[in-house]
Amino acid sequence: MTATPFADRLFDAIECVGSAACVGLDPDVARLPGGLGEKSPAEAIEVFSLGVLEEIVPGGRPIVPAVKVQSACYERYGSAGVAALERTIERANELGLVVILDAKRGDIGVSARHYAASAVGMGAHAITVNAYLGPETVEPYLDAGLGVFVLVRTSNPDSDAVQSVRLEDGRTVAEMMGGHVAALGTRFMGGCGYSSVGAVVGATKPGDAGAMRRCMPRQFFLVPGFGAQGGTVETVRGLVDERGGGVLVSASRSVIYAAETDGAHWRASVRSAASAFADEMRALG
Amino acid sequence: MTATPFADRLFDAIECVGSAACVGLDPDVARLPGGLGEKSPAEAIEVFSLGVLEEIVPGGRPIVPAVKVQSACYERYGSAGVAALERTIERANELGLVVILDAKRGDIGVSARHYAASAVGMGAHAITVNAYLGPETVEPYLDAGLGVFVLVRTSNPDSDAVQSVRLEDGRTVAEMMGGHVAALGTRFMGGCGYSSVGAVVGATKPGDAGAMRRCMPRQFFLVPGFGAQGGTVETVRGLVDERGGGVLVSASRSVIYAAETDGAHWRASVRSAASAFADEMRALG
Repeated sequence: MTATPFADRLFDAIECVGSAACVGLDPDVARLPGGLGEKSPAEAIEVFSLGVLEEIVPGGRPIVPAVKVQSACYERYGSAGVAALERTIERANELGLVVILDAKRGDIGVSARHYAASAVGMGAHAITVNAYLGPETVEPYLDAGLGVFVLVRTSNPDSDAVQSVRLEDGRTVAEMMGGHVAALGTRFMGGCGYSSVGAVVGATKPGDAGAMRRCMPRQFFLVPGFGAQGGTVETVRGLVDERGGGVLVSASRSVIYAAETDGAHWRASVRSAASAFADEMRALG
Repeated sequence: MTATPFADRLFDAIECVGSAACVGLDPDVARLPGGLGEKSPAEAIEVFSLGVLEEIVPGGRPIVPAVKVQSACYERYGSAGVAALERTIERANELGLVVILDAKRGDIGVSARHYAASAVGMGAHAITVNAYLGPETVEPYLDAGLGVFVLVRTSNPDSDAVQSVRLEDGRTVAEMMGGHVAALGTRFMGGCGYSSVGAVVGATKPGDAGAMRRCMPRQFFLVPGFGAQGGTVETVRGLVDERGGGVLVSASRSVIYAAETDGAHWRASVRSAASAFADEMRALG
């Protein structure tokens, strides 16, 4: 739990680094580089995760302001994987990174409070949340001191089957969800002018970008889908607000598995890919 | 992973026990009985969980066909809690219970496959899934051999703000989600006539019961909200299909914390409350 609102923590970190780039940690044993040593899968993804973290904060200076840690990759290995997740988040904190736990949780009442306590206990600063159960189910995470990014318009093609469906009032389901996010967000504003209630808005749906920004003017958008999924600087630019900010763009595979394409040692590849990505996002503002 | 479709496993278990009652394991240290010994929170919820399981399968004969394990209660304590979850599910399997992991997961592509692998690795037979990201995001769980219960119409009051919103075609968001569930479900039918793609439909929204059953005629409904949340035998009866089945009704707090009201030793209270609940649900069919 922190006294600084999440929105201000994130805003300051982006200002300090000068880039709205976020590295996604999605370690998958099937794609890990060689040379990690003979280990269990949970140990291997931990060694890899800690190595990526070291490379994106060379000499104690972060290349990017934030990391997004994909919980599923660690939970895949049960309690041993969750222990690796705990140590990964702990190290990210030591390195001064803003940590977003991409867990897409969503439950009611005391269960939501348990999920929030779990994320706080691990040291996450924010969590991704699914609000299909209703906007009130997002509040326990905020009450626990976390920032949230509510799933509004996701980057996968099939999301249209739910999120693009039109309501009788003319809005889409995603716009309705965005309206809930904006309304809840007014109660959790940071001094920076953004809310600690943000939204996940993919980079792959440029046709919806204007509508998303109109219904959520004070939200940070966590933007997945950049790089491997097809999002570009242009599609991200459509999501930026009138102040030239309000986005945090996440790239995972194109950074952490950069060695698959550039052929260098994986640690050097991660560092150079993270730098190149941070530079691309520097040009946004 | 199992060769028997989940729908058939659940159908047979309900037939064998003669009741559609499911005990929810939602252990909360704040409400645990005394006499568990001096332990860490994770150890305490494990001891309690294993005790509840023993009481609902006295002498090796299950009082109820299934348990619903609330993942949040265990994740609350990080990797130690997840280890307790693993041992709880393992014991439920040994006792012959159908195990539903109430994790409300929902993610895309490889992340969904990781969540599915995690649930299979723990020994769960089914998992609750949030399909706001699109119906295709449900498939990895089914491909991994799990049954699923997709969140369609949840029991909390605030769910109306999303699920009751009306679409331009006249349906509600919940009915749209139910339509996706029914369509996906046709590809995963059991020999019993029900699909392994079920739905979460709360007992607290009786006005929607008819519409839910009409759009999902071949689905098992996992019905939370019975007992503590206000659902009754009458509201459950509205969800039963024309065969007199298709529901699995879950009660958590009213069973596992029964000693708070009857004053007996907690283990005896759990057993008698589970028996009484099973008898109530026997009258449905």
